[in-house]
Amino acid sequence: MREHGGNLDHAQQRFGGRAEAWIDLSTGINRLPYPVGEIDAHHWQALPSRSEIEALHQAARHAYRTSAPIVAMGGAQAAIQLLPQLAPRGRARILAPTYNEYAPILSAAGWEVEEVGALDALAGANLAIVVNPNNPDGRRHAPKDLLALLPHVGYLVIDESFVDAVPDVSLASEAGERGLLILRSFGKFYGLAGLRLGFAIGHADDIGKIAAASGPWPVSGAAIAIGCRALRDDAWAKATSARLARDCVRLDDMVQPRGWTLVGGAPLFRLYETADALAAQEKFARGQIWSRVFAQKPTWLRLGLPGSEPEWLRLAEVLAR
Amino acid sequence: MREHGGNLDHAQQRFGGRAEAWIDLSTGINRLPYPVGEIDAHHWQALPSRSEIEALHQAARHAYRTSAPIVAMGGAQAAIQLLPQLAPRGRARILAPTYNEYAPILSAAGWEVEEVGALDALAGANLAIVVNPNNPDGRRHAPKDLLALLPHVGYLVIDESFVDAVPDVSLASEAGERGLLILRSFGKFYGLAGLRLGFAIGHADDIGKIAAASGPWPVSGAAIAIGCRALRDDAWAKATSARLARDCVRLDDMVQPRGWTLVGGAPLFRLYETADALAAQEKFARGQIWSRVFAQKPTWLRLGLPGSEPEWLRLAEVLAR
Repeated sequence: MREHGGNLDHAQQRFGGRAEAWIDLSTGINRLPYPVGEIDAHHWQALPSRSEIEALHQAARHAYRTSAPIVAMGGAQAAIQLLPQLAPRGRARILAPTYNEYAPILSAAGWEVEEVGALDALAGANLAIVVNPNNPDGRRHAPKDLLALLPHVGYLVIDESFVDAVPDVSLASEAGERGLLILRSFGKFYGLAGLRLGFAIGHADDIGKIAAASGPWPVSGAAIAIGCRALRDDAWAKATSARLARDCVRLDDMVQPRGWTLVGGAPLFRLYETADALAAQEKFARGQIWSRVFAQKPTWLRLGLPGSEPEWLRLAEVLAR
Repeated sequence: MREHGGNLDHAQQRFGGRAEAWIDLSTGINRLPYPVGEIDAHHWQALPSRSEIEALHQAARHAYRTSAPIVAMGGAQAAIQLLPQLAPRGRARILAPTYNEYAPILSAAGWEVEEVGALDALAGANLAIVVNPNNPDGRRHAPKDLLALLPHVGYLVIDESFVDAVPDVSLASEAGERGLLILRSFGKFYGLAGLRLGFAIGHADDIGKIAAASGPWPVSGAAIAIGCRALRDDAWAKATSARLARDCVRLDDMVQPRGWTLVGGAPLFRLYETADALAAQEKFARGQIWSRVFAQKPTWLRLGLPGSEPEWLRLAEVLAR
């Protein structure tokens, strides 16, 4: 398996401690999740019905401010797995560095894959991929710049896994145009990555193709029950976005005395330039805080945001050691 | 979407009533499910780790009496969606009539699909599909007869979605041989279809290919938590198998006075030959019991097994009308 955040089992194997004792900041998953509440027995027992899946789609359209065709899937990752089937194989260009699943999945399916460093360089691709805001460096692209690129590529896939707290960055409201495909993650902003829920939004033909490849019951009953509630809870989303914005500043301030500089970030994670990221990761790990390093970038350390006050305190203590 | 059982929303639209008031016998899902219990917050919030997924695989190997390579998926259906990718497209033969997803999924992916009526007629196919016990007619094939077919086909896919209560019919213990792929459903026998959990078992190369296509987080944290518990609970499985065997006899006896004859069945459903299945379905529906009919077979009515005593009583009342 490729290297990912959230691999807390590796941290435990190396540094010990029960999983519950660790603070996992190796991902960009909100640590103050949407309340799961009671799941009705029906959602565990029955196959999800078309009406239930359609209600989930409507809730997602509400949250994502779009009226475009949409399909629920087992996480944004499930949509990424299907990208090679979107079009006849050809030339894919990926705005890099970014999430490390795109290149190998497309390559394995016979696509010619090129990683490029600037938006302009995506032009001419049969399939162009932009993560916006980008993971891990938080780079953002204005919707108008992305729309300007659309006529110059076959497909433009915008992975908006980290956009929820900065909705003005999203292109979801423009979805429905041919060639534009938006991927959304539910689990990161709502702090429920274990639920496995995400969405693809786009032109009816493409969404139909993705839905057909996903099958009649692509998500669980619990994902439908919780997703329908969470995606309609505007007050929670607003309060969470505001809290995350404050917490980003708090984290940036906390690490500053160590001399780390901010490479960039989205509202769910911060990427810092350090002298030695592996050394920093080990230091955190001895305090049972897990962070993310990048084999190709030995000075980069990515930290998710702590949730509760005790988590912030532990982070401060470890930083002070 | 293709016609399936479990489409209770259609029944409600036609016949009214709240979903909770209906007894859904249109599927082969156990109506006395494995107890869901408490789901630890961790399983909702975190991405499933490799260790957790491996623990689920071990629990499934235990339940299915196999040591072969295995991969967890979002239901047996998720494995079916990937079948076209198992081998270069060619000639698929399906032992029919059977579950109605195989033929269209393979056809849509460019396979030449032929439905055949006898096991022998599968020989010569690049991909042969047998549902064992079969849905909807309960036909069973002895493991030795299936193994004898193996050298005469490219791939032999055995869908064992309904085998749990009759484990001697399963070929899972023989899995691992090249060309043999076993699909298992968790949700039917354990009565938790909304959880979306199933498994593919087979040769390491094929399981590796399916795992790669499924991505790093193919199932939810809840599916891992509940699956690990349920698949290790031998006492529950044994008691449930015995109860289902008794309940099959009870249902067959109950419908006999109507003159219906048993076409066949598995421990989770019964298929009856009736004078007019649509009329029977309507009669049941007016008592808010939903059943399954088949457009191609106007005399076939499939009934799942009621769960609680009140459900059995309501069925008896409706039958007596």
